[in-house]
Amino acid sequence: MNYFLILAPIIGILALAFAFIKASSIDKVAPGNDRMIEISNHIQDGAMAFLSRQYKSLGIFIVVLFAILTFVPGLGLKTAICFLLGAFFSIIAGYIGMRVATKANVRTANAAMESGMNKALNVAFSGGVVMGMCVVGLGLLGVGQLYIIFKDPNIITGFGLGASSIALFARVGGGIYTKAADVGADLVGKVEAGIPEDDPRNPAVIADNVGDNVGDVAGMGADLFESYVGAIISAITLGLAAYGEKGAIFALALAGVGIIASIIGVYFVRGDKDPQKSLNTGTLVSSVLTIIVGYFLSNNILGSNKPFIAILSGLVVGLIIAKITEYYTSGDYKPVQRIAAESETGASTNIIGGLSVGMMSTAGPIVLISIGILVAYYVAGGSTNVAEGLYGISLAAVGMLSTAGMTIAVDAYGPIADNAGGIAEMCELPEEVREITDKLDAVGNTTAAVGKGFAIGSAALTALALFSSYTQVVGLTGIDLTKPTVIAGAFIGGMLPFLFAAMTMDAVGKAAFSMIEEVRRQFKEIPGIMEGKATPEYGTCVDISTKAALQEMIIPGLLAVIVPVAVGILLGAEALGGLLAGALVTGVLMAIFMSNAGGAWDNAKKYIEEGHHGGKGSEAHHAAVTGDTVGDPFKDTSGPSLNILIKLMTIVSLVFAGLFGNGILF
Amino acid sequence: MNYFLILAPIIGILALAFAFIKASSIDKVAPGNDRMIEISNHIQDGAMAFLSRQYKSLGIFIVVLFAILTFVPGLGLKTAICFLLGAFFSIIAGYIGMRVATKANVRTANAAMESGMNKALNVAFSGGVVMGMCVVGLGLLGVGQLYIIFKDPNIITGFGLGASSIALFARVGGGIYTKAADVGADLVGKVEAGIPEDDPRNPAVIADNVGDNVGDVAGMGADLFESYVGAIISAITLGLAAYGEKGAIFALALAGVGIIASIIGVYFVRGDKDPQKSLNTGTLVSSVLTIIVGYFLSNNILGSNKPFIAILSGLVVGLIIAKITEYYTSGDYKPVQRIAAESETGASTNIIGGLSVGMMSTAGPIVLISIGILVAYYVAGGSTNVAEGLYGISLAAVGMLSTAGMTIAVDAYGPIADNAGGIAEMCELPEEVREITDKLDAVGNTTAAVGKGFAIGSAALTALALFSSYTQVVGLTGIDLTKPTVIAGAFIGGMLPFLFAAMTMDAVGKAAFSMIEEVRRQFKEIPGIMEGKATPEYGTCVDISTKAALQEMIIPGLLAVIVPVAVGILLGAEALGGLLAGALVTGVLMAIFMSNAGGAWDNAKKYIEEGHHGGKGSEAHHAAVTGDTVGDPFKDTSGPSLNILIKLMTIVSLVFAGLFGNGILF
Repeated sequence: MNYFLILAPIIGILALAFAFIKASSIDKVAPGNDRMIEISNHIQDGAMAFLSRQYKSLGIFIVVLFAILTFVPGLGLKTAICFLLGAFFSIIAGYIGMRVATKANVRTANAAMESGMNKALNVAFSGGVVMGMCVVGLGLLGVGQLYIIFKDPNIITGFGLGASSIALFARVGGGIYTKAADVGADLVGKVEAGIPEDDPRNPAVIADNVGDNVGDVAGMGADLFESYVGAIISAITLGLAAYGEKGAIFALALAGVGIIASIIGVYFVRGDKDPQKSLNTGTLVSSVLTIIVGYFLSNNILGSNKPFIAILSGLVVGLIIAKITEYYTSGDYKPVQRIAAESETGASTNIIGGLSVGMMSTAGPIVLISIGILVAYYVAGGSTNVAEGLYGISLAAVGMLSTAGMTIAVDAYGPIADNAGGIAEMCELPEEVREITDKLDAVGNTTAAVGKGFAIGSAALTALALFSSYTQVVGLTGIDLTKPTVIAGAFIGGMLPFLFAAMTMDAVGKAAFSMIEEVRRQFKEIPGIMEGKATPEYGTCVDISTKAALQEMIIPGLLAVIVPVAVGILLGAEALGGLLAGALVTGVLMAIFMSNAGGAWDNAKKYIEEGHHGGKGSEAHHAAVTGDTVGDPFKDTSGPSLNILIKLMTIVSLVFAGLFGNGILF
Repeated sequence: MNYFLILAPIIGILALAFAFIKASSIDKVAPGNDRMIEISNHIQDGAMAFLSRQYKSLGIFIVVLFAILTFVPGLGLKTAICFLLGAFFSIIAGYIGMRVATKANVRTANAAMESGMNKALNVAFSGGVVMGMCVVGLGLLGVGQLYIIFKDPNIITGFGLGASSIALFARVGGGIYTKAADVGADLVGKVEAGIPEDDPRNPAVIADNVGDNVGDVAGMGADLFESYVGAIISAITLGLAAYGEKGAIFALALAGVGIIASIIGVYFVRGDKDPQKSLNTGTLVSSVLTIIVGYFLSNNILGSNKPFIAILSGLVVGLIIAKITEYYTSGDYKPVQRIAAESETGASTNIIGGLSVGMMSTAGPIVLISIGILVAYYVAGGSTNVAEGLYGISLAAVGMLSTAGMTIAVDAYGPIADNAGGIAEMCELPEEVREITDKLDAVGNTTAAVGKGFAIGSAALTALALFSSYTQVVGLTGIDLTKPTVIAGAFIGGMLPFLFAAMTMDAVGKAAFSMIEEVRRQFKEIPGIMEGKATPEYGTCVDISTKAALQEMIIPGLLAVIVPVAVGILLGAEALGGLLAGALVTGVLMAIFMSNAGGAWDNAKKYIEEGHHGGKGSEAHHAAVTGDTVGDPFKDTSGPSLNILIKLMTIVSLVFAGLFGNGILF
C-alpha cells in the first residue's frame, strides 16, 4: 500500500492528539472564583442539555435512515455503516468542541483577570484549536480509514451523508436556538426592562450565552466538518476517474499536509502581539506551508503541477472572498459607513441600505467562484480530459478547506471570547477585565464575519464538487437546460433556498416570541428579580430555545431530504441535476446576501455606538438597532442554514443516485 | 396568402380604432373647475416633461444601437429597421397611454362629483382601455405586418429588441422616478411637516402624482408590450420550426382572437355594480371567449387540439398566480394579518415578517410555472418532437398574454383612480367625492398587486420562450450544466438580478434624498407656503425625479446589454445559455419575492389603519410605516425592473446570436 495512504488516518490521529494536549492545557488554567464557576456551570449545563436533547431526536432520524440505507437496492449495509460513522464522528467533534469551549470561556475571563491579554488570548484560541483539530482529525481519520477498507467512493459517500445529517441538526437547529435566545433576551431585557446586555437578572441570559456555543461553535464546526468530508470524498471519486488510485491518494495527502501546516500555524499565534495580527500570521503560515508542500506533492504523486494550480485557485479564491466579506461588513469601509449614515433618516432607509449592500456583495464572490471553477477545470486539463477537469474542481474545494483546522480554530475563538466577556459582566469582574475581553471580542467579530464568508465559499465549491461526482456516478452524459424537465428542476431547486430562508426566519420569530413571554412572566412573577435578590429560572429559557430549535427544524430538514429524492424519481436524474444546480446558484447567492447584510447591519450599529451620527441613544442608533435585529436571523440562522441545504441535497442525491432513472412522469 | 395572416394587422388596427373611440369619449367628459384644470395641467406637464427628456436620452441610445445592428455581420439594415419600429411603437403606446391617463384622472374626479360612482368608474376604466388597446394593437400590427413583409423571424426579433429597449427606459427609469417622488414627498410632507398625503402645499406632490403615471401606466405598459411582442415573436420562430407557416399563423391568429375577446370584455365592465366584480367579469369574459375560439382555431389551423392545451395551461397558470399573489398581499388573508400583528413588537419584527412572507410566496408561482412548462411542452408533443414541445411553451406564453388588452386596461385603471383621488384632495372637493375615489382606489390597489403577479408570470414565460428560440437560432444541441463554462454562466446570470436590484434600490435612495433636500429647502425659503398663501415650485421637484431617473438607469441598463454579449463572446453561446437560465431563475424568484413583500407591507399598514392593533398613530402603525417605506422600492422599482432584465438579456442574446461561437477564452 502506498505510504501516503497509511499516513492519512495517522495524521488524523495526530490532530486528535494535538487537540487532547490543547484541551488538557485549558484544564490546567484556574476557572476563577465561585460566582464564575457557578455561571460557567449554568452555561455548560445548558449547552449539554441542548446536546442531549438533540441526540435523542437525532437517534430516531439516524435509525430510520440507517434502515433505509441498508435496504434500498444498490446501497446496503456497508454504506449504512459509513453513514453511522459519519454521523458519530460529527457528533463527537461537536461534543468535544462544545465541552472545551464552555470550559475555555470562564478560564479566558479568569486569565484576563489574573494574567492579562496574552494569556487570555492563548486560552480562548486554544479552545478554538481543539474544535478545529477535532473536525479535521476526525474527518481525515474517518474518510482515510474507510477508503483503505472499502476502496469504493460510492460506499464512503455514506460517511458524507452522516456528516451532512448532523450538520443539518447542528447548524439549522443551532441557528434557531442562538437567535431565539438572543432576540428574546435583547427585546425584553435591553429594550423593555432597560438592563444591559449579559445582565444576570435577565432570565434569558444563560440561554443567550449557551446559544453562542450551540450556534457558533458546534453549528459552525458541523458545517465545516460536512464541507471538509464532502470535498475529500468528491476528490476521491473524481480523482479515481481521472488518475486512478493516485488521484484518491493525492486528495488524502493534501488534507494531511493541511493538518500539519495548521498545527505549525498554531504556534505562530502568540499573545505577545496584537490579537488580530497574531491570528492572521497563524493563518498565513498554514496557507503558505500547504501551498509549498502541495506543489511538491502534486509533482511527486501525480507527476504534474497542473492539479497544484487547481488547489491554489481554491485557496486564493477563499482568501479573496474573505477580504471582500470584510469590505462589505466591517465598519472601516464605505458600505457599512453608508448604512450608518442612512440610519439618520430612520429605520426604513437603514433597512433598504442593508438589503442593498447585501445584494451588492454577491457580485464579487460569485465572479470569483466562477473564475475559480474555470481556472481549476481548465488548468487541471479539462479542455482535453473532462475527468481531469472535474477533479480540478474538487481539488479547488480541498485546497480551500485544507487549512480548515486553522480556520475553524480562528472562527471558534470568537464565541469563546464573547462568552468570556459575558461571564465577566455577569460576575461583575473589574473594568480592566472587560476591556481585555471586549478587545478579544471585537477581533472575534471580524473573524466571525470572515469565517462566514469562508464557510459559504467552501460550501459552494464542495457542493459543486459533489454535483460533479453526482453526474459521474449517475452516469449522465450531460444535464441539458434546453429540456423542460431540467428547467423545471432548476426553477424548483432555485426556489428552495427562498423557502428554506423563510421557514428558518419564521422559526426564529416564533421561538423568540415564546422566549419574550417567558422572560416577561419571570419579571412579573418572581419577586426581587430586578433588585438582584432572587435568581431567575435560567433553565426554563434554555428549555424553550432547545425545544423550539428541534421542533422548528423538522419541516425544513425533511424538505431538504425528500424534495431531491421525489424530483429524481418523478422527473428523472437529469431533472434532479437541474434542481441541484438551481439550488446551488440561488443558495450561494442568498447565503452571501443574508450573511453580509446581517454583518453590515451589526457593524453599522457598532459604528454608530462608537460615536458617529449621534452615537448611542440617538435617532440614528435606534434605526440601526432595528437593522441589527433584522440581521440577526439573516446572518446567524437563515444564511448559514443555506450552506447545509445545498450540500445536503447534493449528497442525498449522490447516495440515492441508483434510484433515479428517466423519471416516471414523462 | 392565408386570410388569417392578413387579419392580424387588421385586428391590430381595429384595436387602435377602439382606443381612439374610447379616448374621444373621455375627451367629451368635462374636466371640472378651474382649480382642477390647473392641477391636472401641472400633472400633465410633468408627465410630458419626463417623456420628452426621456426621448432625448433614448434618441442617442436608439441611434447607436441602430448603427450597431446595421453593421454587425449577420444582422443588417432590415433588423435595424425592425428595431426602430419596435422602439417607435412602444414609445407611441406609452405616449398615448400617458396622455389619456392624465386626461382621464381629472375627468374621473369630476365625474365622481357630478354623476357619481358609475360614471367615475367608466371614465377611469376607459383610460385604462386606451392604454391596453394601444399596447396590443400596436404589438399585433407591428409583428403581423413585419412577418408578412419579411417572413423571417430572425429579422422580426429586431422589433422585440426595440420594444425591450424602450421598456428598460420606461420601467426602470419610471420605477426610479415614481418612488423617488413618493418616498421624498412622504418623508418630508407626512413625517416631518405633518401635512396629509396629496396636500397641495407639498412641493413634491405633483411629482408624486406624475410618478403614478410614469411608473404604473407607461412603465407597466412598456413592460407588457415587451412581453406581448416577445411571446408572439418566439411563437412565430418556434411555430415555423414545428408546423411550418401554419405555426406562425396560429400564433398571430390567437393574438387577434384575444384582442377581439378583450374588446367584447370591455362592454361587460359596467358601472352599475360593485367595481371589483365588474372588472372581474370583464376579465373572465375575455378569457373564456379566447379559450373557446382558441380551441376551434387550434383544430382548424393546426389540425390538432394539443397546442390548445398548451395555451390553456398558460392562461390557467396566469390566473392561479394572480390568486396566489392576492393571498400573500391582501389584508383579507393570514400572511398580511400576521405581518400586522408582528408590527406590535416593533419595526424589526415587521420587516422580518414581510421578508419572510415575500420569500415564502415564491413557492406556489414557481411550482405552477414549472408544471405549466412541463404540461405545455409534453402535451404539445414534446416527448416525440422537440420542436412541437418548444412551440407549446411559447404558446403558453401567448395564451397568458392573449387577453393582455383587458389585463392592462384593468391594471392601468388603478393609477388613474389613484390620481383622481389625489386631484380631489388637492382641489378640496367635497367629502363624498373622496369617498368614491377612495373606493375606486382601493379596488385599484388589488388590481395593481394582481397585475404585478401577471407581469412577472408573463415575463417568465416570455423569457423562457425567447430562451428556447435562442437555443434554436444559435444552433445549440444542448446547454450542458456539467460543463464548467455553463455553471459559471449560471452563477453570473443568477447574480445579475441581485446586482440589478441593489443598484435600483440605491438609485431610489439617492434620488429620494435629493427630493427631501429640495422640499426642505422650499419649506424654508418660500414664505407663506405652509399657510397655503404661496404656490410651491412643483417644477423643480419634477425635474429632480426626471433627472435622477434617467441618470441612475444608465449603468444597470448597460449591464443588461453588455454582460450577455461579453459572456457570449468570451465563454461561448452555451455558457451564455447558462447565464440566461441562471438569470431567468433568480430573476423570477427575486421579482416575486420583492413585489409580494412590498405588497404585503403596504397592505399590512392599511390593515392597521383600518383600526386593527391600535390603528393609525399606534406603535404598531409606526412599525408598519417603516415596512411600507422599505416595500416601496421593492414592489415598484426593483421587482418590476427584473421583468425587464430577464427579457432584455434574452432578446439581446437572440439578436446577436450570430456573434457567439465556442467562446474565445477556453
